[in-house]
Amino acid sequence: MVAVLKPNATDAQIKNLTEWLEGRGLKVHISKGESYTILGLIGDTSKIDEDLIAGLETVDSVKRVSEPFKSVNRKFHPGDSVINITETLKIGGGHFQIMAGPCSVESPGQILEIAKSVKASGASVLRGGAFKPRTSPYDFQGLRADGIELLLEAKRQTGMPIVTEIMNANHLDMFENVDIIQVGARNMQNFELLKELGKLNKPILLKRGLANTLQELLMSAEYIMAGGNRDIILCERGIRTFETYTRNTLDLSAVPMLKELTHLPVVIDPSHACGLARLVPPMAMAAVAAGAHGLIIEVHNDPVNAMCDGGQSLTPEQFGEVAEKVRKIRGVIS
Amino acid sequence: MVAVLKPNATDAQIKNLTEWLEGRGLKVHISKGESYTILGLIGDTSKIDEDLIAGLETVDSVKRVSEPFKSVNRKFHPGDSVINITETLKIGGGHFQIMAGPCSVESPGQILEIAKSVKASGASVLRGGAFKPRTSPYDFQGLRADGIELLLEAKRQTGMPIVTEIMNANHLDMFENVDIIQVGARNMQNFELLKELGKLNKPILLKRGLANTLQELLMSAEYIMAGGNRDIILCERGIRTFETYTRNTLDLSAVPMLKELTHLPVVIDPSHACGLARLVPPMAMAAVAAGAHGLIIEVHNDPVNAMCDGGQSLTPEQFGEVAEKVRKIRGVIS
Amino acid sequence: MVAVLKPNATDAQIKNLTEWLEGRGLKVHISKGESYTILGLIGDTSKIDEDLIAGLETVDSVKRVSEPFKSVNRKFHPGDSVINITETLKIGGGHFQIMAGPCSVESPGQILEIAKSVKASGASVLRGGAFKPRTSPYDFQGLRADGIELLLEAKRQTGMPIVTEIMNANHLDMFENVDIIQVGARNMQNFELLKELGKLNKPILLKRGLANTLQELLMSAEYIMAGGNRDIILCERGIRTFETYTRNTLDLSAVPMLKELTHLPVVIDPSHACGLARLVPPMAMAAVAAGAHGLIIEVHNDPVNAMCDGGQSLTPEQFGEVAEKVRKIRGVIS
Amino acid sequence: MVAVLKPNATDAQIKNLTEWLEGRGLKVHISKGESYTILGLIGDTSKIDEDLIAGLETVDSVKRVSEPFKSVNRKFHPGDSVINITETLKIGGGHFQIMAGPCSVESPGQILEIAKSVKASGASVLRGGAFKPRTSPYDFQGLRADGIELLLEAKRQTGMPIVTEIMNANHLDMFENVDIIQVGARNMQNFELLKELGKLNKPILLKRGLANTLQELLMSAEYIMAGGNRDIILCERGIRTFETYTRNTLDLSAVPMLKELTHLPVVIDPSHACGLARLVPPMAMAAVAAGAHGLIIEVHNDPVNAMCDGGQSLTPEQFGEVAEKVRKIRGVIS
Repeated sequence: MVAVLKPNATDAQIKNLTEWLEGRGLKVHISKGESYTILGLIGDTSKIDEDLIAGLETVDSVKRVSEPFKSVNRKFHPGDSVINITETLKIGGGHFQIMAGPCSVESPGQILEIAKSVKASGASVLRGGAFKPRTSPYDFQGLRADGIELLLEAKRQTGMPIVTEIMNANHLDMFENVDIIQVGARNMQNFELLKELGKLNKPILLKRGLANTLQELLMSAEYIMAGGNRDIILCERGIRTFETYTRNTLDLSAVPMLKELTHLPVVIDPSHACGLARLVPPMAMAAVAAGAHGLIIEVHNDPVNAMCDGGQSLTPEQFGEVAEKVRKIRGVIS
Repeated sequence: MVAVLKPNATDAQIKNLTEWLEGRGLKVHISKGESYTILGLIGDTSKIDEDLIAGLETVDSVKRVSEPFKSVNRKFHPGDSVINITETLKIGGGHFQIMAGPCSVESPGQILEIAKSVKASGASVLRGGAFKPRTSPYDFQGLRADGIELLLEAKRQTGMPIVTEIMNANHLDMFENVDIIQVGARNMQNFELLKELGKLNKPILLKRGLANTLQELLMSAEYIMAGGNRDIILCERGIRTFETYTRNTLDLSAVPMLKELTHLPVVIDPSHACGLARLVPPMAMAAVAAGAHGLIIEVHNDPVNAMCDGGQSLTPEQFGEVAEKVRKIRGVIS
Repeated sequence: MVAVLKPNATDAQIKNLTEWLEGRGLKVHISKGESYTILGLIGDTSKIDEDLIAGLETVDSVKRVSEPFKSVNRKFHPGDSVINITETLKIGGGHFQIMAGPCSVESPGQILEIAKSVKASGASVLRGGAFKPRTSPYDFQGLRADGIELLLEAKRQTGMPIVTEIMNANHLDMFENVDIIQVGARNMQNFELLKELGKLNKPILLKRGLANTLQELLMSAEYIMAGGNRDIILCERGIRTFETYTRNTLDLSAVPMLKELTHLPVVIDPSHACGLARLVPPMAMAAVAAGAHGLIIEVHNDPVNAMCDGGQSLTPEQFGEVAEKVRKIRGVIS
Repeated sequence: MVAVLKPNATDAQIKNLTEWLEGRGLKVHISKGESYTILGLIGDTSKIDEDLIAGLETVDSVKRVSEPFKSVNRKFHPGDSVINITETLKIGGGHFQIMAGPCSVESPGQILEIAKSVKASGASVLRGGAFKPRTSPYDFQGLRADGIELLLEAKRQTGMPIVTEIMNANHLDMFENVDIIQVGARNMQNFELLKELGKLNKPILLKRGLANTLQELLMSAEYIMAGGNRDIILCERGIRTFETYTRNTLDLSAVPMLKELTHLPVVIDPSHACGLARLVPPMAMAAVAAGAHGLIIEVHNDPVNAMCDGGQSLTPEQFGEVAEKVRKIRGVIS
């Protein structure tokens, strides 16, 4: 951590501050310039409150030097994490997977039909929402417990592992046979939920919040990993910007940037990012060209009558074409 | 709801779409222009998925006409809501209150000393964090249950009602004697938590999320009110912008705008918004000049050694001066 | 244009408003709902001030239905625009080009050496900054007129057409032999400059502003086209978001979205977007996978000693590798 | 400037980098921690390119310690700048002024009538737009030269100094008798224009760009001051956020923050910020409570028929009430 002092800081003030910092177990290196004095703070700064120091009368500004995330940091774990979704299915490192399925689970026939068709086209994980976070209390909130049951039935019939979203740690019992538990964008900083997921031994798909930075995403992953669960898949799903033609803005530079910062796999959700089915194919290809470890794509057998987000869902046929193009891009970049 | 069709929509397509919409219980008014056809959808559109219609091949864009919030909407409840914090203390309408206290409860002596001093200076509600949402799992997470106990003890000794943040509906038992339950910015769209709070008969202080719109804030209030709890205090606490000199940007236009949109009281938290104690006095005065129903201000007896957010806390003396100036501004505007 | 009236609008007010709008040459279709009345305004609404109508006492909100851009609108010009950079070099439609070169022109040797190397690796246009918009008046402002001379000399020696930025319409004389004139992000809404460029018969590379929407970008293109110059190349170069690991956030969904909205070619600048040379290769490939008509990439023969933005420049060798991969991606998607 | 090196930086690399920096005239202080080495760079770092150093292979991140602005910096000029608008009218320090008038100058009668009424209510400067920056080339662009003439005529008849916007340095001749030249938000980083204004001996009202930081605003003021013109009035007029109920978000914390950073006066434009006339009174009062040195407010004698931005204009009567309340708030805070 580096603290820059105000130009008018007196020697007495600098001495006081230095002693206060040393009292917190830090070594302090002082660099005196003509108009500024810089303190380099060496040691475990993770328990020093940056805002507090920045607010001190003598201090002009503070900069944290080492990243505040540790377990998820590639600096301390240089190799790629490879996560076992099932005994035989892996993601991360050289392992690439496509997760596909409807926004919401609606009926036994719907989820099974979609599962079979996306499996045939190359998806290896079935996605489907049972608990739906909706801005309005009057919008469809998902089939909830029944939706989980329908997903599990589709898993039994197709053999596909499933990924679905959790909104409440009290529901964890229902997720026992779910293969990947998704944390949605709005719960990325629901720290109480993250702590509970840290106690599990099951992969977590952690979505970036709508206005969160990559560092905040990694800090939320750190919450899970601090609890002992190391199987985390990061997901970029679009961030809020001023653009209105697309629902959100897909930040594909997150792919190479996250791969540099962390050892965890990174997947892209082009469906929620754009909100428009016709933008999904080019953005899915771009995500793969940027180096993503996976995709999560919405597919619906009857988008027009879907109960949620139908406008962003591909038909099974469209999904098949995307999966085919993705395979070709993968061939070029690997 | 208004749907604008694409210029090349055929009569057959328009007929199909119209019938589909009528099948959902809506009346459809068609306005045909030279290059565009506009459908005015009349009836209960609250269950129509806007994104789905926007994604239809024939449709160019969709606009929701009536606000999606109802119970919190001033259109349907023109008078100001006045909320009873205690039997004798009210907020909303002509009732203005200042909530003050430390970011975190730290010790019996600390919270009691601050409580007494802010009460003497004119604060009517004691604030203090027991459960702290922190970006890092390694940061101080609050005294949790012990913190609630210390707040309740300070309440017993001073008679001040207390406001403190909840992060997990499983903790509700501990909040039985808390007077106002705060929902923090990061939990504004924790819909499962909002639903539980909707079942209570106790005021909720709902903070606006860091990158959320006023409409989203009102929709979250609607979640609580849909459950039956009508005692909601809205709080603007700064939103995320590109500015870096201040931690967040306090959106004071939220005050008159929310007062137009809803009947609920609106309070301002200048401490979290700015992150710098020296900006709190001018912004507190500005908030009152803009018409806020209340303030929530961080005060600490020893900011330099505070365990959290000390840099943004006023001393009791500074708070006293702010409270005095606020009273004078109130005199001018009312 | 659609105007939604307030619920309490009286028949007399609606009649007044309707007559006022008809007085401006519009036809008005009225749809009366239970709580809202919607006016569909048919005719040339391009001269109606949306904000004015939105501010009227009777009006709740206004929505523009037809896009405010006309000449650049694909609806009225369905075919792709193909722009002649030189007599033999085209961009747009099926024509893909890579522009490469240093951020700043620094010396005769530097620009010539880079020009030769990027040409050998597949770049078809030489880029280089002579006039540099810098946030600080104390930063290097470019070689200005001398820089243009050096670019022209490199053009003579290599035969490559050149693209360089203009900051002041008074400099237009110097740009006579420049092949493509670039308008930088900070001048995207310098309307006086756009008007002057509209009088030319020369391709303009128009960069999206740092916090501008695609519609605003298209409106600025419309300014140029309204003057008679139809040769406009749009460029996405990263937008401002809250993310700090990357300098800006490259919005690749702009590629398919712009291709839907307009007939103009779309190129991507991954160098300025990311600000980090090591992110340029994956983002360049992603841009091509998303369907971009071209790339503009910074290349420097000695990035460490570059006078500007060295940190985001590729070496000629790195550029060669990117160009090779881009060719392979092009092979997959076309 | 502080450079943080990567954990794996070797002694040889550190030596190389140190020598390279010393070759640029800087002294280098090295602080070695367990996992990081920090270089404190002492001397004139204003010509060091921060991005270049950040991009070096050995370097993890860079932080500028001293502000990049000098002439406008309060650290070097502790006293408030007081600017002479006319021989007798001052702004800054204890001098507070209200500028008022229509968005656009439309006719001799309009501007004169408004000028007289706002003067009677307490405005000391007449505002009015002659050159109008409009997003669309088809929107009303102002009366241009004729508008300036009408403003000058109103000045002659009322004795009020005038402020109006410039969009092109080639128009400077027309502005000879304009008292304050306004630079609009979209031209805040039109550096060529700023340089020309730096050569004048006339007050400049510099508006903050829609997505610009306070530091960028101050750097643009620095451009003007570097040319010799020290008479700059800073203006906050709302920044772009995700909020849509208001056109922009007025950042009132800019007032105390700018007053801390710079000696220049700060005025607030609540009309453009909100875009809604009914929000102007509370935001004007809040601006004054926050400590602004002045206000710039749109007033129109016939808002419904105004040619531009009528929806945000107060009537003369409403303006009179605001001016009265502002006087009272001034009485409380000073």
